[in-house]
Amino acid sequence: MPCVTLCAVSSTDRDDGGAQEGGAPSPDALLPALDAEQLGVLRRVGREWGRVAGDPQAWRRALPVDPDLGRYPPASEIRPVRFGRFVPVATVGGQPPAVETAGEDTRTSRLGRVGSGVRRVLLGAPLRSTAIAHERMRKLVALPVLSADALSSVAYGPEAMLAVLVLAGTAGLRYSVPIAVTITFLMLAVGVSYRQTIRAYPHGGGSYIVATANLGRLPGLAAAAGLMTDYILTVAVSIASGMAAVTSAIPSLQRDIVPIGLAVIAVLLAGNLRGVRQAGALFAAPTYGFVIAVLVLVAVGLYDAGGRGFHPTATPRLTATEGVSVLLVLRAFASGSTAMTGIEAISNAVPVFQPTEWRNARTTLTWMVGLLIVLFAGTVALVHFDGIVPNPQETVLSQLAHRAFGSGVGYVFTQAATAAILLLAANTAYNDFPRVLYLLARDLQAPRIFLRLGDRLAFSNGIVLLSVAAAAIYAAFGGKTAPLIPLYAVGVFLAFTLSQTGMVVHWWRLRDRHWRKSLTFNAVGALLSAIVLITAAITKFTQGAWFAALIVGLFILVATRIRHHYDLVAEALALHPHAVEIPSRTITPPRSREGATPAGAPVPSPALRAPSGTGADAEGEETPEEIHPLLIVPIAALDLAGMRALAYAASLRQPVLALHISPSAFEAERFREYWNQWGDHLPLKIVLSPYRAIVAPLVNYIESLHRQRPDLTLTVILPEIVVRHRRHRLLHNRLAPRLRRALRPLPKIVVTTVPFHV
Amino acid sequence: MPCVTLCAVSSTDRDDGGAQEGGAPSPDALLPALDAEQLGVLRRVGREWGRVAGDPQAWRRALPVDPDLGRYPPASEIRPVRFGRFVPVATVGGQPPAVETAGEDTRTSRLGRVGSGVRRVLLGAPLRSTAIAHERMRKLVALPVLSADALSSVAYGPEAMLAVLVLAGTAGLRYSVPIAVTITFLMLAVGVSYRQTIRAYPHGGGSYIVATANLGRLPGLAAAAGLMTDYILTVAVSIASGMAAVTSAIPSLQRDIVPIGLAVIAVLLAGNLRGVRQAGALFAAPTYGFVIAVLVLVAVGLYDAGGRGFHPTATPRLTATEGVSVLLVLRAFASGSTAMTGIEAISNAVPVFQPTEWRNARTTLTWMVGLLIVLFAGTVALVHFDGIVPNPQETVLSQLAHRAFGSGVGYVFTQAATAAILLLAANTAYNDFPRVLYLLARDLQAPRIFLRLGDRLAFSNGIVLLSVAAAAIYAAFGGKTAPLIPLYAVGVFLAFTLSQTGMVVHWWRLRDRHWRKSLTFNAVGALLSAIVLITAAITKFTQGAWFAALIVGLFILVATRIRHHYDLVAEALALHPHAVEIPSRTITPPRSREGATPAGAPVPSPALRAPSGTGADAEGEETPEEIHPLLIVPIAALDLAGMRALAYAASLRQPVLALHISPSAFEAERFREYWNQWGDHLPLKIVLSPYRAIVAPLVNYIESLHRQRPDLTLTVILPEIVVRHRRHRLLHNRLAPRLRRALRPLPKIVVTTVPFHV
Repeated sequence: MPCVTLCAVSSTDRDDGGAQEGGAPSPDALLPALDAEQLGVLRRVGREWGRVAGDPQAWRRALPVDPDLGRYPPASEIRPVRFGRFVPVATVGGQPPAVETAGEDTRTSRLGRVGSGVRRVLLGAPLRSTAIAHERMRKLVALPVLSADALSSVAYGPEAMLAVLVLAGTAGLRYSVPIAVTITFLMLAVGVSYRQTIRAYPHGGGSYIVATANLGRLPGLAAAAGLMTDYILTVAVSIASGMAAVTSAIPSLQRDIVPIGLAVIAVLLAGNLRGVRQAGALFAAPTYGFVIAVLVLVAVGLYDAGGRGFHPTATPRLTATEGVSVLLVLRAFASGSTAMTGIEAISNAVPVFQPTEWRNARTTLTWMVGLLIVLFAGTVALVHFDGIVPNPQETVLSQLAHRAFGSGVGYVFTQAATAAILLLAANTAYNDFPRVLYLLARDLQAPRIFLRLGDRLAFSNGIVLLSVAAAAIYAAFGGKTAPLIPLYAVGVFLAFTLSQTGMVVHWWRLRDRHWRKSLTFNAVGALLSAIVLITAAITKFTQGAWFAALIVGLFILVATRIRHHYDLVAEALALHPHAVEIPSRTITPPRSREGATPAGAPVPSPALRAPSGTGADAEGEETPEEIHPLLIVPIAALDLAGMRALAYAASLRQPVLALHISPSAFEAERFREYWNQWGDHLPLKIVLSPYRAIVAPLVNYIESLHRQRPDLTLTVILPEIVVRHRRHRLLHNRLAPRLRRALRPLPKIVVTTVPFHV
Repeated sequence: MPCVTLCAVSSTDRDDGGAQEGGAPSPDALLPALDAEQLGVLRRVGREWGRVAGDPQAWRRALPVDPDLGRYPPASEIRPVRFGRFVPVATVGGQPPAVETAGEDTRTSRLGRVGSGVRRVLLGAPLRSTAIAHERMRKLVALPVLSADALSSVAYGPEAMLAVLVLAGTAGLRYSVPIAVTITFLMLAVGVSYRQTIRAYPHGGGSYIVATANLGRLPGLAAAAGLMTDYILTVAVSIASGMAAVTSAIPSLQRDIVPIGLAVIAVLLAGNLRGVRQAGALFAAPTYGFVIAVLVLVAVGLYDAGGRGFHPTATPRLTATEGVSVLLVLRAFASGSTAMTGIEAISNAVPVFQPTEWRNARTTLTWMVGLLIVLFAGTVALVHFDGIVPNPQETVLSQLAHRAFGSGVGYVFTQAATAAILLLAANTAYNDFPRVLYLLARDLQAPRIFLRLGDRLAFSNGIVLLSVAAAAIYAAFGGKTAPLIPLYAVGVFLAFTLSQTGMVVHWWRLRDRHWRKSLTFNAVGALLSAIVLITAAITKFTQGAWFAALIVGLFILVATRIRHHYDLVAEALALHPHAVEIPSRTITPPRSREGATPAGAPVPSPALRAPSGTGADAEGEETPEEIHPLLIVPIAALDLAGMRALAYAASLRQPVLALHISPSAFEAERFREYWNQWGDHLPLKIVLSPYRAIVAPLVNYIESLHRQRPDLTLTVILPEIVVRHRRHRLLHNRLAPRLRRALRPLPKIVVTTVPFHV
């Protein structure tokens, strides 16, 4: 289960749709690679720039600092920031070591520091990207780690089935065996089907990847939606039935399952934010424990049953609340098939196996399916022979264990192992859910924040999201397993169906040797999954399947909208070298240390560029020559802050216009007088604001300037007083932020804040 | 009572402590005048600038726009902003008409527009500063307007007194007459005392002004604190006893007094935000109505009493809860003296009288005191004769009215008039409270926001604050008058005492003709007020006076802290022309439209200015030559947004350093490659962030640059993607704001955001 964060593949090219590589996470994904055409554009833009921007060397010489601050800051001076120390880092692009920090944020407020302290304690120190491990697992380790989810399903699958049948009383229970047989066949078919996927996607083929690659975006999204609801429910259901296992042994805890369950989720959250890793062996224990427990249980049970000549014990008389009907049987079938959840895990995680990966993975899958069938069939058979009836106080498994082992060590061990493997299963979701989100984000179908590997190399955002969702559902359903089952099936089998359908298409396209066999197997798998999906969707629609369906639908909608938005943005951000050659004017770089002089400020004469309305409004400048700055300094008073803003503006040697908003003619006259006293060094414009407003007159004046000369890039230079204590903020009319907010929507208006620290 | 916002005095020089002018509000106060010395400094700074900044004309010629956008924008194009239209404004400083807006804010979001719409409906269109009226009032108008507060006190003063006495049963009630006599004498003395104030402060002498001018800052603050608690309680008490008047007539409303009272406060709030004005006549009615009602009441009552030969009717037997004691009597006295509240109103408002103001004001004051005494004495006498006993269900006044008029028109009229005048009294506070805050803010002892005249020429902030405070207290005390009285007295008499003590000092300093008389009168007034103050403070300490005292203390503390902060800021903001002459280097202004070329960029050689640590850290630059810019462009990708940021930086022709944060060496190499493809036109530094953080490495790199060259002014140029819909924000890692926040605390780091609209 740790596979996901374990198996890193260095390539992160997005254009191959991630189909060929298992979509291993990599921080590089944040900046997708450029294709040849984009590179061409980049070069053209560069040439244009080169024509006007002058000699790069001059710019380099002009630099007043040494960018590779060799010894800066000396270790002594280092101010601790959020995550402490500076870290020297390997040279990049032939440059001497750079200095930077491990931090993620420099909130140096006390609260911030405390917060980060707590974080460190809970989550541990940050991990370098290079720490992404390449652990490989032996089959006997991989088996328990990857099959926890699937095998643990035995703990609730049969029970879910029986819970439906018992509604029809003893008559109903009789159907358990035939249904179980069908499900085992289903397991077999799906298992074989996934064997094909493993062969086809040696880098790991999650449903989302397979569906997207072979069926297209929408099916891909549907699969993703199915998977994500599946993972959320895996957490909720696993913990719910884990609690059931515990409360069966210790009924007194019955009342507190919700808080306890939430606590468990919190622990999972913390653990995964920490980035659970290298834990193969540790995770092996509970799985094997569970397997052994159940096997022994079944063996003992069957031995007893054999002693009785396999005559089923008569179940206690049951009052049937509804008669046996096709619908009932189908519902039972749908519920029971939740025992298959997690069967796809191995096919996602092929790369964690030792070479040759796909062969080992296949073998492991076979073992797993084998085990799954044995455990599942065994349990159901035993229930049948022992005439067990599901009851809300005690799980079926617990009842069987009591029968087999009494209440001694054996029983306790069984319950403990059950709880443990269920916990493990829940943890699996914590690795898969964020990964699907990551893949979605990489394909621009989810917010980019899910691309971010936290400083512990875990997808923090996705992990948090999963915890919140799971906790909400768990609490909403009062920590009970039964009501969750109907929601469960839909998502799982939607993903199954789509991925296997995808495989069919895959084989059809590929046509390699014995593609026919594979295609057939996948087709069967897809068909059966589809049947279960439809059955579940229809028979359980009213019990909650509608909700699952709704979620899936919403998800697809939102993802599409997001993709749409990102596409728009990408389009807007695309470079567009000018087809027509603009009459070029050279901008010499600033004077170098040696002291050559640059050319003058580019102040276009109005004749040269008439205000071309919208055209000039567009923010499409790519080269310095296209930008004609005008610096506007709104000045409230001729104090040091204002003076610095003016000085800063003038020091840039671009055209400057000082702006003063005055509430009354009297005050205006007075300010003008002061301005003259100062020497009237810069052009000053006084705007009267008879209604004493400040922001609006400014904004409107600037707007009309823009209307007058849309080709200019107006830079508003705001002096901003920065106070040390938050509480002092109230004492200053924080104009700068308000102005910034008011100016943001306007085009081609750059806002500069010159801080003044008090 | 509207005086405050009515009487505008054009001069706003702060240095005369506002003593000579009634501290009339003026928007100009936002920018205090400079004294000769400050002007001198300004000139020196100007000269320095002139030495280096080159010919002002050149800067003017270089301006690519016409700052006096004569016809911009043509009326057709005008985009409506918050308050709608643009308003052409009278020429300022010999400039052609400027364009600006009536607006106060340009939130053009739908919500914003709706909000402003509602505002307009409730508050009406904005008013120009020039709209501050100069209404003068005839004595007969001024009397009711200014004495509402004082006269209305008769509605609760006597009752408050009796409510205490009745605790001692019938025996206690006997003391009502002697106490009333004392209070009337007190009224006389204080009245005469205020006559002196009027003579001395013909521009209006509020307690704060008088106390500050003659006793110093702390006493001034104490007076202000007293006044403000007074005003808050005036609102609460007036409305509470107004409700009492109503519920006496309509007992069924008893249960709902709190909601109704709050509604009334809301109405007052809205009305005053609108800026109640020109309402002399309207406000005259209730006062005269009340006066007439009570006078008739008293007359009728006394006539009846006369018929009985002035034999007091026996009061119903009362169970005394405590015996008659000095303490009890004193408490009754303190409570009763609340009947004096508002007696100072006229002395604040001298300028609203017709010339000669002070004489008219004095006459009016005399009349008012006369009326007050008559009403007060009359009421008490009547209560005595009719043997009225205060009871929570019905006010004393209401009982008297019943006696006198039965339950007919006369009674209803009395109750209505009482409620009306009390409402009016509450409204008085709405003019005085914000004014005191304004004066405090002008003296830097309250947040500057209270200087702001709203767009309706009302001190919106102060008005809102008053409403909130009053509403809170009113609700907290369940809309009952009695429990509020103890808090009341302290504030009022604190202000009285201080202002009259101030007057004593005033006369002692002045020594004009018959200063002795005035001094004596004021001294007596001060003494008596002081006695009441002490009595109230001691006797009612446990019933709530402690709270009032606490508030006063806190207020003084906070105000002092605020003043301290503002002083620090002012000090930090003061200009400081360099004593030593810096080797001057000329900065030629940018090329004019005619096309002369300016000198080169000022890139200081490290030799010229060694990093002088803290010294260079100080943000004290006053002239362009002192500023050595280095532009840093953090660039995430070579897309249009990033390219524009680079182009913008280059177009300023200052040294530029591009900065890229890279999560892995792989990605770094790749970006370097792209950069070279582009042409490597600018110096690029790639910082590895092995922990995938972005903000912290940036901030730390910039910090260490600053450490390397503290003399440089680092300008961080951030491309910022601006999305139209709020919900889309989630889809972009809003780095710019986070960086801005992280960089704010650092010295000499200017942040520029280059918006890119999607």
